[in-house]
Amino acid sequence: MDQPSKNQATPLSKIGEFKLINHLTEKVDIKHKSTIKGIGDDAAIIKGGKEELVVTTDMLCEGIHFDLLYTPIKHLGYKAVVVNLSDIYAMNARPEQITVSIAVSNKISVEFLEELYEGIQMACDNYQVDLIGGDTTSSNSGLIISVTAIGRALKEDIVYRSTAAANELICVSGDLGGAYMGLQLLEREKSIYESSKGVQPDLSGYDYILERQLKPEARFDIIHTLKKKGILPTSMIDVSDGLSSDLLHLCEASNLGCSLYEEKIPIDTTTVSISEDFKIGQTTAALNGGEDYELLFTVKLDDHEKITQIPEITIIGHMNGKGEGKNLITTTGSVIEITASGWDSIED
Amino acid sequence: MDQPSKNQATPLSKIGEFKLINHLTEKVDIKHKSTIKGIGDDAAIIKGGKEELVVTTDMLCEGIHFDLLYTPIKHLGYKAVVVNLSDIYAMNARPEQITVSIAVSNKISVEFLEELYEGIQMACDNYQVDLIGGDTTSSNSGLIISVTAIGRALKEDIVYRSTAAANELICVSGDLGGAYMGLQLLEREKSIYESSKGVQPDLSGYDYILERQLKPEARFDIIHTLKKKGILPTSMIDVSDGLSSDLLHLCEASNLGCSLYEEKIPIDTTTVSISEDFKIGQTTAALNGGEDYELLFTVKLDDHEKITQIPEITIIGHMNGKGEGKNLITTTGSVIEITASGWDSIED
Repeated sequence: MDQPSKNQATPLSKIGEFKLINHLTEKVDIKHKSTIKGIGDDAAIIKGGKEELVVTTDMLCEGIHFDLLYTPIKHLGYKAVVVNLSDIYAMNARPEQITVSIAVSNKISVEFLEELYEGIQMACDNYQVDLIGGDTTSSNSGLIISVTAIGRALKEDIVYRSTAAANELICVSGDLGGAYMGLQLLEREKSIYESSKGVQPDLSGYDYILERQLKPEARFDIIHTLKKKGILPTSMIDVSDGLSSDLLHLCEASNLGCSLYEEKIPIDTTTVSISEDFKIGQTTAALNGGEDYELLFTVKLDDHEKITQIPEITIIGHMNGKGEGKNLITTTGSVIEITASGWDSIED
Repeated sequence: MDQPSKNQATPLSKIGEFKLINHLTEKVDIKHKSTIKGIGDDAAIIKGGKEELVVTTDMLCEGIHFDLLYTPIKHLGYKAVVVNLSDIYAMNARPEQITVSIAVSNKISVEFLEELYEGIQMACDNYQVDLIGGDTTSSNSGLIISVTAIGRALKEDIVYRSTAAANELICVSGDLGGAYMGLQLLEREKSIYESSKGVQPDLSGYDYILERQLKPEARFDIIHTLKKKGILPTSMIDVSDGLSSDLLHLCEASNLGCSLYEEKIPIDTTTVSISEDFKIGQTTAALNGGEDYELLFTVKLDDHEKITQIPEITIIGHMNGKGEGKNLITTTGSVIEITASGWDSIED
């Protein structure tokens, strides 16, 4: 009954999520030829038949990733699937199967789980994936949902984080910061609800950012459009941790710098107006917010014209040589180094 | 902020784990030709190249599946991997890759996680599998480990639960009930330890059953031996829930009955002696205990002689037509209907 003493030990808060994973997995060696790409991208790649298989997994924990007070259960099931599919699309692959494991307190009812599975099933239907297995168990505490998604892509179509080149264009789909501002709004309304003993909050007019937070979508439409236009991104990642953090991942994996233009960052008008209410800079929301599940990717300069024809995609900067730094060029022309203050799920 | 009322609702304890999974997934439809087998066996099967891919997932939760007071952390990491590999072997496949997602309280130290990963890595080395991805996140509560394992097998080698035939022999590897008695012993010593303010318990002489509980192994040696002897089981499952429960799964999937002979059930002498101490029948421990991770399978009558040449395998009964019932024939000759009182992780 000996365990390492928790008092003498290094607290998790001393080490960030990404560093922690790197630290814990640094001794991992690959034994099988069938393992093409292990840890270190949006998903792993293993040998399939004509196509390779793309595998990713993500876990959502009550109290950390969601609050059941304001999260519709069906949406939660939907989101748990979508965040995994987003990682598959970020490899330029198409998801086909998922497994879902759930740990629930015995206080939760059968009806609650039915709603959760309705959301899971809805995501499976919308994104055309098969639920092929899982595990359901009790937990002594909150709800935990762990999803693994499996996708497919031809070897030559798979896009990694590590393959960008200097001078290539940095592009992003949709708009950023909405999911984060949706979360801020929900947290504020929760405080009001709790302090006013149950008065229902009025969330009308904020549908867009609430949906960005509670029921995000993965951008398979972007993958489809890029393919149709004959554009193969040179590198790609999904924006789950925030633009700054995810762009740094692309830069570090590709061993490059970047120039990101503040004025180019696409932000929805609802996000702009609510960020003013909250006195959070709209750029801060976009850079650090996370959970937008948009696609961040680089393309060759030759694809510039084709990209500008796609309304849902914005060019927000370009890659640089490593020595030129990872910079944000602000609307006033200042140059600021981008730091990884994106959302980090290991917090104090 | 409306959620279904927990008071008006059906408690989870009203419905067993297996029924719950069936209930929640009854609307699942399969959309892809690449999905060969979905929910309902030890693992799902999806199309690979020359070989099919075998996918399974299992989640271990603190306070439900393990108690950190007496579980060495390294063993816990090892076990979390092994229980998944066991499901892959139960399909007569070989595991090649795993993903590991972990939710931890911030109270847990970096050193704790290092030990956990050492155990995970040790299982990867012993069973020759690659750790290819995962997720590490904080939890507001206990430790949760979710593993997904991916294996491979030729289509014609895959063994399902549903393909047994009447009169075939029921076989099991190793011995049963040890993991359960190991758990009983640990729980008793925990009580003594807690009531005597920290006196270290003496667990010497019980190594075998403690290891069965804390650091089980998956029977890849049995899969290897069967192949070498030219025996292809006609159906197979791993003993994770207890012999009675898992044998019923085989019977139900194959739409058959069975005759199980109590005197044939292999039980280790340590298990026998400790079950006497605890006044738990040794047959009860074997039938209802679970977590032995042995392989339970059926073979054709023609393979009888070959099977008897393998010391690690015991013939414990035979399959019957459905109408003949699922029966335990006791040492005194009584015939008792087998019921699913195997370990069920959704409890009151």
